[in-house]
Amino acid sequence: MRLLIIGGSDAGISAALRAHELESSAEVTVALADDFPNFSVCGLPFYLSGETPDWRNLAHRTEFQGIELLRGHRATAIDPHAKTVTIKRASLPGEISLSYDKLIVATGAEPRSAFGLRKADVPGVFPLHTMGDAFAVQSALEGRHSVVIVGAGYIGLEMADALIHRGLSVTIISRRDPIFPTMDSEFGNRLTRELQSHGVNVLAGYSAVGIEPATAGSRVLCSDGTEALGDVVLVAAGVRPASALAASAGVPLGASRAIQVDRRMRTAVPDLFAAGDCVETWHRVLERPVYLPLGTTAHKQGRVAGENAISGGPGREFAGSVGTQVVKVFDTVLARTGLLEHEARAAGFDTAVAEAEAWDHKAYYPGARMLTLRILGDRRSGRLLGAQIMGPWTAEISKRIDVFASALFHRSTVESLNDLDLSYTPPLGSPWDAIQIAAQHWSGSVGRAQ
Amino acid sequence: MRLLIIGGSDAGISAALRAHELESSAEVTVALADDFPNFSVCGLPFYLSGETPDWRNLAHRTEFQGIELLRGHRATAIDPHAKTVTIKRASLPGEISLSYDKLIVATGAEPRSAFGLRKADVPGVFPLHTMGDAFAVQSALEGRHSVVIVGAGYIGLEMADALIHRGLSVTIISRRDPIFPTMDSEFGNRLTRELQSHGVNVLAGYSAVGIEPATAGSRVLCSDGTEALGDVVLVAAGVRPASALAASAGVPLGASRAIQVDRRMRTAVPDLFAAGDCVETWHRVLERPVYLPLGTTAHKQGRVAGENAISGGPGREFAGSVGTQVVKVFDTVLARTGLLEHEARAAGFDTAVAEAEAWDHKAYYPGARMLTLRILGDRRSGRLLGAQIMGPWTAEISKRIDVFASALFHRSTVESLNDLDLSYTPPLGSPWDAIQIAAQHWSGSVGRAQ
Repeated sequence: MRLLIIGGSDAGISAALRAHELESSAEVTVALADDFPNFSVCGLPFYLSGETPDWRNLAHRTEFQGIELLRGHRATAIDPHAKTVTIKRASLPGEISLSYDKLIVATGAEPRSAFGLRKADVPGVFPLHTMGDAFAVQSALEGRHSVVIVGAGYIGLEMADALIHRGLSVTIISRRDPIFPTMDSEFGNRLTRELQSHGVNVLAGYSAVGIEPATAGSRVLCSDGTEALGDVVLVAAGVRPASALAASAGVPLGASRAIQVDRRMRTAVPDLFAAGDCVETWHRVLERPVYLPLGTTAHKQGRVAGENAISGGPGREFAGSVGTQVVKVFDTVLARTGLLEHEARAAGFDTAVAEAEAWDHKAYYPGARMLTLRILGDRRSGRLLGAQIMGPWTAEISKRIDVFASALFHRSTVESLNDLDLSYTPPLGSPWDAIQIAAQHWSGSVGRAQ
Repeated sequence: MRLLIIGGSDAGISAALRAHELESSAEVTVALADDFPNFSVCGLPFYLSGETPDWRNLAHRTEFQGIELLRGHRATAIDPHAKTVTIKRASLPGEISLSYDKLIVATGAEPRSAFGLRKADVPGVFPLHTMGDAFAVQSALEGRHSVVIVGAGYIGLEMADALIHRGLSVTIISRRDPIFPTMDSEFGNRLTRELQSHGVNVLAGYSAVGIEPATAGSRVLCSDGTEALGDVVLVAAGVRPASALAASAGVPLGASRAIQVDRRMRTAVPDLFAAGDCVETWHRVLERPVYLPLGTTAHKQGRVAGENAISGGPGREFAGSVGTQVVKVFDTVLARTGLLEHEARAAGFDTAVAEAEAWDHKAYYPGARMLTLRILGDRRSGRLLGAQIMGPWTAEISKRIDVFASALFHRSTVESLNDLDLSYTPPLGSPWDAIQIAAQHWSGSVGRAQ
């Protein structure tokens, strides 16, 4: 049994490890285009901030016992009939062919170019998606003073924090105003103030339309004529699925141009699985596939793909994403799970939102911090549809959103959050946790107390 | 409709608030023996440590709109046929009688006396259960140097921390060795070291059998002849249900001498409900009643009792406790939910335990802290039965145990913890959270990977 995996990031390595764990006699090979298997792309901002000085520490793991890793091996074609993959090796002429019994495509995502611009079109302009990008940015930042970040998603926001930490002057350009449409606008406005209070120049509601060389550095042009000058420009305009390789082998793509897979991570092509940022992800609340590339999801999908590729059984199902996300920006954490109101309305729910403020622990114990929680529920059924929390770092926001995520996983009602036996001691919580105070607030506001 | 509630702590006040919320025209009266409605008994150690200087801040709330509070009103008898309660008012002669349509008994717990000893038997010896106790201890500690704590449960441990914080010399006596049988012995031993490293003298495995006056302070005598001398002695030997009032009215008690209630918090006596530390609690994992007095449970049971007492409908069920508990001792947090192995075995489960160590967040981001997690599961069904976590304060242990508690609530398998869409950002977690690393460890150790 020969399992070949294309891609050495979260999904590919998780698949390989799981397959080897279940069937140690299988021949498991991972072909990765670069030299950095299972590196944490989410960690790049912390390498560039200086908080993680040694980039080698960004590896999620460095031991891959029982797995053959082919570094610098870029797959250029898949022949699903011959069951072979054509590989171009870095700095070697010609191509080789690898055969497989089962193939997992885990080619990940690639940065979306802002206005058709790619790295190296203008000197001093960089994406930030790979270790190679990070090294290039690290080198470009030396001795420089100012950076313009195009895009205010997770990477853009974390880089604003990272570069201020490093002592640079930072401008961030967001097409949306309020910024951060991943969460409700109330949070976007507060996030802008958090950025500004740390010295970030926030241009919210500005569409960057071009970048041109300036006397020193580069100039980002916005559609209304506004210009932002920086020694270095980072383009963090989101990602799209790296699905071209699979598509050219006849693997069907979804509307988002991500690879279509079933809940067992099988594509429509026999013996060909796919997982991670290149595939459509089953959304457990919407009950349909969406494109939602996240490291957590990639790990889970890879594990499922590895398990199903190696076993002849009925197979394990990917349970689905509920859309849980969290980011730390300076001293603030923003977390969400489930749907936003407009997403839930579009899906036919009769939505109601309630906002509550609650202490992270009893106010009488020193250091209590105020959280803002928003709960989205269905007015008819009382079902929980989503939750968002914003508050200070160290207020256990991340794991509180996980309690909501667990409730979403089980299709709970908002009111039943009050039945959960959550932990309490005055330095760490309240007899009704902030989660439950928010739930009671929602129930009260919509008159759904049962 | 006249709802009378005996007891003004967590359960009684929760019941009153819920009843008023649902039926504002009802006449809701709470008779409490002391002057401190809805005070946080869990907060007493922090008042005595000095971290919460003003005892008034220990009130969970100070507004009780729409509820008649009768302070200093101690119920001495219930007549369930006449539907009246006899009340003795503090510092007033004679008794009064209050009638009710529905009655909720929320008389709480009372401290268990160590070896038949009660406060005031020996000067300088105190329980710590009420605001009155706290004032007496506060006054007794002034100008003193050493304290002996008899009992190493939550209050005993928190008081050891509190008194060291205050600069006193502390000896704690635990009948059990290792201490803290609420969690597995590995954790008890580590907790002893944590106490010792902060200067606490830990006597583990010593049975206190008496207390006698010494030249200065008091002397606690242990069964092996060991003696512990302190200016002040705190007896924190656990609690028992304050069920005598209900029992004398003919309300049946359970084996633990706690009031028997159904899931709707009804006693066997018509129109008589009970909730909180005086009742048996439905355990959702064991599926039988147990005595497990906790503030979180009291709040939930009170809310259910209030709802059912006020409404004529089929009634809401108390969903049950899964045994979630957490305590902070110096810089360490210990949390558990579900069962211990011996409890699960006694209930007929085919138990397996696995221990894992995992970082609270990615090790490459500064400040990562190591957690120790133990998972208890059923080997046959794969079902999660319990979890324990120990690690540094501020490592989101409390809310991590809540994710386990949510899984227990839903009768999940250990393996399905890996399906949960938990949040991840490098400063706050890992793509597989510590919860999931522990789950994978358990599955691997028992060969249950599906």
